[in-house]
Amino acid sequence: MVSAQISIDRIFHALGDPTRRAIVEKLSRQPASASRLAKPLGITVAAVVQHLQILEASGLARTEKLGRVRTCRIEPKGLSMAEQWIADRRSLWEKRLDKLGDLLAEDS
Amino acid sequence: MVSAQISIDRIFHALGDPTRRAIVEKLSRQPASASRLAKPLGITVAAVVQHLQILEASGLARTEKLGRVRTCRIEPKGLSMAEQWIADRRSLWEKRLDKLGDLLAEDS
Repeated sequence: MVSAQISIDRIFHALGDPTRRAIVEKLSRQPASASRLAKPLGITVAAVVQHLQILEASGLARTEKLGRVRTCRIEPKGLSMAEQWIADRRSLWEKRLDKLGDLLAEDS
Repeated sequence: MVSAQISIDRIFHALGDPTRRAIVEKLSRQPASASRLAKPLGITVAAVVQHLQILEASGLARTEKLGRVRTCRIEPKGLSMAEQWIADRRSLWEKRLDKLGDLLAEDS
């Protein structure tokens, strides 16, 4: 439970940065090297690597070294965890609305 | 677009904190005053108010003053925006997997 909590902290924190979200967006479309990610973002490869380390640590991306090239891919687990966390809260909120609706229907 | 970007930044940043997520969880179940939120979280009312200000600024909660009591409620817009952002990236990723599947099927 504690490690799940830490992961969710990391995932949301990682997604709170627009450059990291842009990287997640690009990797959702296709795997890419750090240098290919850097160019359209207008940042250095070193900066991309730093962001990728944060994305990797939070389970949002993973990198593989094939020969001399390090390729980055989306890791769906991280996005799924964040999506599930939000969906669970929405479900709580919707249940409460349903109950309120029932109470109002009883009163009318 | 810029304001949407800023909002998404704020929403994910706000959700990156375990205390704020606990507040969102409680407000998803029912509206509550800041003092009612503070007790089970083991933090001061002042600390809750600070967290609530961040949640309000990011569109995740709203507060209403009824007489002397300030009541906090969940604001579904913020959670929906975050959920939609994630779902859109998942959709990109799933489309790519579908294409890969088609390519593999053609090859076999």
